[in-house]
Amino acid sequence: MNIAGELLIGRQSVRGGNGVIHAIDAASGASLEPAFGGATPQQLEQACALAWQAFDTFRDTAPERRAAFLEAIAANIVALGDALVDRCTAESGLPRARIEGERARAVGQLRLFAEVVRQGDFLDLRVDPAQPERKPLPRVDLRMRNIALGPVAVFGASNFPLAFSVAGGDTASALAAGCPVIVKAHPAHPGTSELVGRAIQQAVEQMDLPEGTFSLLFDSGLEIGQRLVTDPRIKAVGFTGSRAGGMALMALAAARPEPIPVFAEMSSINPVLLFPHALAKRAEAIGEAFASALTLGAGQFCTNPGLILAVDGDDLDRFLQAASARIAGTAAATMLTPGIQRAYWAGVDALAHHPRVRTLARGQSGSAYQGQAALFTTDAEAFLVDEALRTEVFGASSLVVRCRDLPEMLRVVASLEGQLTAAIHIDAADHAAARPFLPVLERLAGRILVNGFGTGVEVGHAMVHGGPWPATSDSRSTSVGSLAIARFLRPVCYQDMPPELLPQALRPDSAQRPAWREDGRLQRGPD
Amino acid sequence: MNIAGELLIGRQSVRGGNGVIHAIDAASGASLEPAFGGATPQQLEQACALAWQAFDTFRDTAPERRAAFLEAIAANIVALGDALVDRCTAESGLPRARIEGERARAVGQLRLFAEVVRQGDFLDLRVDPAQPERKPLPRVDLRMRNIALGPVAVFGASNFPLAFSVAGGDTASALAAGCPVIVKAHPAHPGTSELVGRAIQQAVEQMDLPEGTFSLLFDSGLEIGQRLVTDPRIKAVGFTGSRAGGMALMALAAARPEPIPVFAEMSSINPVLLFPHALAKRAEAIGEAFASALTLGAGQFCTNPGLILAVDGDDLDRFLQAASARIAGTAAATMLTPGIQRAYWAGVDALAHHPRVRTLARGQSGSAYQGQAALFTTDAEAFLVDEALRTEVFGASSLVVRCRDLPEMLRVVASLEGQLTAAIHIDAADHAAARPFLPVLERLAGRILVNGFGTGVEVGHAMVHGGPWPATSDSRSTSVGSLAIARFLRPVCYQDMPPELLPQALRPDSAQRPAWREDGRLQRGPD
Repeated sequence: MNIAGELLIGRQSVRGGNGVIHAIDAASGASLEPAFGGATPQQLEQACALAWQAFDTFRDTAPERRAAFLEAIAANIVALGDALVDRCTAESGLPRARIEGERARAVGQLRLFAEVVRQGDFLDLRVDPAQPERKPLPRVDLRMRNIALGPVAVFGASNFPLAFSVAGGDTASALAAGCPVIVKAHPAHPGTSELVGRAIQQAVEQMDLPEGTFSLLFDSGLEIGQRLVTDPRIKAVGFTGSRAGGMALMALAAARPEPIPVFAEMSSINPVLLFPHALAKRAEAIGEAFASALTLGAGQFCTNPGLILAVDGDDLDRFLQAASARIAGTAAATMLTPGIQRAYWAGVDALAHHPRVRTLARGQSGSAYQGQAALFTTDAEAFLVDEALRTEVFGASSLVVRCRDLPEMLRVVASLEGQLTAAIHIDAADHAAARPFLPVLERLAGRILVNGFGTGVEVGHAMVHGGPWPATSDSRSTSVGSLAIARFLRPVCYQDMPPELLPQALRPDSAQRPAWREDGRLQRGPD
Repeated sequence: MNIAGELLIGRQSVRGGNGVIHAIDAASGASLEPAFGGATPQQLEQACALAWQAFDTFRDTAPERRAAFLEAIAANIVALGDALVDRCTAESGLPRARIEGERARAVGQLRLFAEVVRQGDFLDLRVDPAQPERKPLPRVDLRMRNIALGPVAVFGASNFPLAFSVAGGDTASALAAGCPVIVKAHPAHPGTSELVGRAIQQAVEQMDLPEGTFSLLFDSGLEIGQRLVTDPRIKAVGFTGSRAGGMALMALAAARPEPIPVFAEMSSINPVLLFPHALAKRAEAIGEAFASALTLGAGQFCTNPGLILAVDGDDLDRFLQAASARIAGTAAATMLTPGIQRAYWAGVDALAHHPRVRTLARGQSGSAYQGQAALFTTDAEAFLVDEALRTEVFGASSLVVRCRDLPEMLRVVASLEGQLTAAIHIDAADHAAARPFLPVLERLAGRILVNGFGTGVEVGHAMVHGGPWPATSDSRSTSVGSLAIARFLRPVCYQDMPPELLPQALRPDSAQRPAWREDGRLQRGPD
């Protein structure tokens, strides 16, 4: 499949008429061919009109057909083969093995949602049967199911050009819910976006779905993205990116005549708490594991361990020595975009010159497009009074906060903003000390993990990739895992509706009904 | 129990130090004793501090204890006996039988949520067990549950002084979720609010729960309500009332340093679609049933049928004659507050003087505090071009839109804003004609009902009292029924956590685990 530099609007591939976007080879800074045209407002209008036309048909597709559609997307992505991996590696600067792993994740995610659609629990079917004899008033017949919210705008992320982008978690879960999707491609990987977009477009055609089920737009500035969020036919937004970007979209969505939900996954420093017994027993091992997690993929993960908390002392010093040694030996790594690289250097520079911060280790230096890992340390007192020390530095930089004792460590944790993850490193002898931290960590983060680091997000049913503000715009949601589908659904109740007008799954004689609740009790559980 | 005119802050009853609020006898306009003091910012601060202190303890209460707490509130409300009914009747102007029915509903609602808590499905427990042998990477152990969001601010509604107020659906579902609640009482029924608030306060004490689990504040202006929504310890808002009020709270919540969700149930005109065969066969019966639903409780329901759509012709005229005759014979009814009565008259007056609107019927006239039912008619062409005709007139006023044919009726439906309910009146012979309306109605409303009217909201598991904007601020939720608890929950994932640190329900050996999903499959279904 060739990269033509075109927008995908329904079944059309067209040249964008609004400015030019060039992909950049992340490692060399060189411009990559072809040039991409940004969408015009008219082209956006076409995409929105098609999405709206497609909505009622697409949301009403039988589960098997929608599942097969998701699987067809997965197969088409796999079929892109090396062309996709090559282009994605060039555009992102990420290593080939990482891109192959990410492709497997994106494909697995689409297949997971196919299973979710087939199983049907996401419909949350409920039946409260009529009670004509009830006194003082008879009870009506009430039946409920979830339906798709409407066309969804998805903003691709730069740091996961496959798993959080055109056919990433937001798109997969929105399509699974029955929502047409319009993707605003991330300008850092337009070629990857077009290839994946064509894989979806092709699947739409293969499954004979309405063409407006999917469109892909490029934006030469910010205007098309803004218009997309404010278009009345768009009913929800999925976004992964910076806090400023997420907040801008939230403000636009809230100011619409009809406000809509924005599911923005934004910033997180992912505190890691080292408890005394674990540190005493395994300081070096934890230090090395930490350095590896920190520097993986140039540290460009939402779940990167940006903050370490521990009680000061010899064991912490052993941890720091081991981590520092590993970091000092780490090669510089190409960052996703020159902009991200500049922001990373600015963040590291600010920490290096902070009067209360000491630089412990730097990774090896590299090219002008690479990031050099960095480890800093400060004390709890300084951390507690200075907002600047808790700002995310996107990349392989981490700050170690030395605490006087566990109560001070708890105060530091309690002072943090919402996070995607929080990790604790403990031994059995630490359990009692860790217990009072747990309610605080539950309030703080979407995922609490033990003796590990947040990088490596498992795509399953029990995963939560979410968390309180500003980790996300809505802590009641996740952007990874099967529960992500819930973001794009709303319940509808049918009262006293004749069976032949009811949705198939709610008919009393339905043979294909998934699990449901009758008067609140689950029916047909295990299968 | 006496009404003292006091705020309830945790276990204290204190005089509000900020201005004076007087209840008004709705029927006579006379001021009722005692005077109530509005909360000061310091008193609000106390309530918020107590709620925050209570949060971790309260959300961690065992299901049985939280269920017993909800049942104790119900019992304490019943024990208030005639004192509550008398005061509530005086403050609201609603008939005694209605208040008794509403008390039964409020009490039933609390007991329903007690069952929901005991059953535990709201926790949405999920377990994806570790797979240490998985290739290329082992799988971690992931467990998920829902936890309470945080302290919730509830704004009582004027039109349901029991079922949507101090111990109404928002409070019941928030407490069930494990969220402490601070109620900002509606100024139209402060005495009712204090009595019910004391019933909750007493239950907190009986169950030995942290005192901050519940507080009740009066507000002599708007300031305390605004401060409540912007207090950093408040994590969600429940509101039932006007569109302007709901939008003001949404703007405040969105502008916070940490934005929070607002679940506002605002305005709805609840379209009723009369199909030709149903009209031909039962025009008079539907007309009379409509007039009864319209005038019930002076029409002061969120689900009041404010808009009738039908194809013009003799059958529609028969419907209108029957409805008009019934309305003309309807006595004027006391409205909730003088303000609501004035707004109702202004709305009716605007329709009566609209050049494209004809007055069909008026109910009997009454006192200065009463509303007189009103029925108007216009044609689809006029309705489609004039925004003013689709504004909610809160009270017993309805507008009939004559359509040329069913396609024009569908265009009118498609032009409407989001609604709580949409009703269709059909016979078997209408099914084919009704079918193309269903997708449009699903997009329009939270509840679609057949051959009935939206008034009378069943409190069960399959109920949806919600709907797209501006019916509510979040179409993905309901404010009535067991699903209302989902508004106040968020998922938390535990990765590789040792059993003894896991929440009870997620431990591998848990004897009391409710239904859960293992790798996405429901376990232990029916019980």
